[in-house]
Amino acid sequence: MNQIERLERLPLRDDLRGQHPYGAPQLDVPILLNVNENTYGVPQDARDAILKAVDDVLAGLNRYPDREFTELRRALAAYLGHGLAAENIWAANGSNEVLQQILQAFGGPGRRVLGFPPTYSMYPLLASGTGTEYVSGARAADFSLTAESAAKQVRELAPNIVFLCSPNNPTGTALGNDVVEAVYEAGSASRTVVIVDEAYAEFAHDGTASAIALLPGRERLIVSRTMSKAFALAGARLGYLAAAPEISDALRLVRLPYHLSAITQATAVAALRNSDSLLANVEQIKIQRDRIVAGLAGMGLQPAPSDSNFVFFGGLEDPQSIWAGLLASGVLIRDVGIAGHLRVTAGTEAETTAFLTQLAVLLGH
Amino acid sequence: MNQIERLERLPLRDDLRGQHPYGAPQLDVPILLNVNENTYGVPQDARDAILKAVDDVLAGLNRYPDREFTELRRALAAYLGHGLAAENIWAANGSNEVLQQILQAFGGPGRRVLGFPPTYSMYPLLASGTGTEYVSGARAADFSLTAESAAKQVRELAPNIVFLCSPNNPTGTALGNDVVEAVYEAGSASRTVVIVDEAYAEFAHDGTASAIALLPGRERLIVSRTMSKAFALAGARLGYLAAAPEISDALRLVRLPYHLSAITQATAVAALRNSDSLLANVEQIKIQRDRIVAGLAGMGLQPAPSDSNFVFFGGLEDPQSIWAGLLASGVLIRDVGIAGHLRVTAGTEAETTAFLTQLAVLLGH
Repeated sequence: MNQIERLERLPLRDDLRGQHPYGAPQLDVPILLNVNENTYGVPQDARDAILKAVDDVLAGLNRYPDREFTELRRALAAYLGHGLAAENIWAANGSNEVLQQILQAFGGPGRRVLGFPPTYSMYPLLASGTGTEYVSGARAADFSLTAESAAKQVRELAPNIVFLCSPNNPTGTALGNDVVEAVYEAGSASRTVVIVDEAYAEFAHDGTASAIALLPGRERLIVSRTMSKAFALAGARLGYLAAAPEISDALRLVRLPYHLSAITQATAVAALRNSDSLLANVEQIKIQRDRIVAGLAGMGLQPAPSDSNFVFFGGLEDPQSIWAGLLASGVLIRDVGIAGHLRVTAGTEAETTAFLTQLAVLLGH
Repeated sequence: MNQIERLERLPLRDDLRGQHPYGAPQLDVPILLNVNENTYGVPQDARDAILKAVDDVLAGLNRYPDREFTELRRALAAYLGHGLAAENIWAANGSNEVLQQILQAFGGPGRRVLGFPPTYSMYPLLASGTGTEYVSGARAADFSLTAESAAKQVRELAPNIVFLCSPNNPTGTALGNDVVEAVYEAGSASRTVVIVDEAYAEFAHDGTASAIALLPGRERLIVSRTMSKAFALAGARLGYLAAAPEISDALRLVRLPYHLSAITQATAVAALRNSDSLLANVEQIKIQRDRIVAGLAGMGLQPAPSDSNFVFFGGLEDPQSIWAGLLASGVLIRDVGIAGHLRVTAGTEAETTAFLTQLAVLLGH
């Protein structure tokens, strides 16, 4: 009996039949540039601070954690600035859980969420998992999305929720705040909840505005963030959002009680107190990102403009063979399933050199 | 603008309107006997082992954790015994998340889950959060549930999922495996998934069978457990289940990727390696539990037989005033909203003495 036959013995929900679990391959190769991690390790001073913070909560680990994670929300508000307070912040085990909670509160059966593919591939899965209908909006041929186009689509569909990913995964490009403003305004009649997923915001070019600046007076606007990328804490699972206080009131109705462990809370608070150290490599990563864009263009490929820690590039005749060739040389990047394209994370200088060198060899440069 | 008016500004899902967040009050009083925690702290040797395990994963915290948490599943299988292997185990951030994933996979819109109140108050909330219809089954007047009655109700309703809580929260009484067998058999035609929630199993009287013994040959049977209670790790948030391997295959389709942090995985593995130390106080807690039952009976109250670390007791004319009187003397117990009844956690010997002494005073004994 194979796995599929085994699963057939169970009364699985109909819409899950034949589906495959989400997730990039977790392969053991020397250079991992496939899931947009910060490839610099966690600095020693931050590790020391986190370990001390964990030690402080161990004796009381027999007790349920603070269900309101108040200290963490204060620390996240202080990090974001913009006059935010703890009541403007919510957090969960990774931004996926934050987004799932938003869909549970404002989506669900009979409701629709609009996304603009190619975009983060978890959006349709989160919709499916919460019984929300996922509708794919349209981008221009170069994957860009203008304020006019996005607003028109929101007005026509009147979705309950819209996902704007900025910088967008997998293309890497940030949206202007004019797009967010136009989408929010277009969703007034339908009371559309607008989620701006800024998982990669810290890597944006100088001068790129965050949608956090738009929060005052917009109670349907949510900006989600994560500590997985710039903060180099993908393993700690901490995603969060900034929004009007009533968004937290709503999510409190759907969150599982005590969803954030005492150790996760302590880890994140300690990390935020050491944000200078943890974020120290962001500038270096941005330099490598820009170097990849230039290097790929120099090879005759078409890299998308990137405000993130990865580069999406087209112009490949056979992306699968390039992906496999890189893997054979110990460099794992991401095939996101878009014809002619691949995506690569900006790693350290040495990792970036290895990627660009191997790619040039494979392309015959 | 108050909180309710604030929330009204948002397009909340209709079935959430007017609801209140789940959760017992988190009050700062000396003796906390309200949420069935293990009131002994985490022993120093276990703390040392956990801290070492966390230290070992900090350098790599920039990477996403093992999505399959293989080492943890192996350690949980070894702890449970019964010939179980890693493929029989699944885990999440607390058993609430395990149960939510089961409902996402096997419940959802158009499907029904049967519970037998009074039982764990999260079941209907988990049903609501996943769009599953919750149906309340019937117990005898003394809150017991026979194999015959439970099987009849399953045959008549043909639910997609049934919750059996054993030992049951809030009543504390364990079900015999005959009930589980009869319910499983009764659910054959409807292919009902049977969840036996054994969160408190380690506190059962000697000779109480676990439904884990029934797993072979029953692919629709799931036994859920937690490290929050006997293991004294409520703050670490680790729930898990034992079942046929295809249950994990199904849950993999609905779990959020990387839902268990590297630190949570390391903490739980270290705790399991130190289970002797962490579980050392279970016998003492059982002694206090039995002492509470005897003490309450001696005061003319009606404690339910308990296989858990808490005692549910009736015979109170005014439970609210007893609850408030205990709180005023620094002892917090739980009003579970059942007329004439309260619930108290078995704590340390001193905490138990304080509870029994204060209660006797309030009752005028």
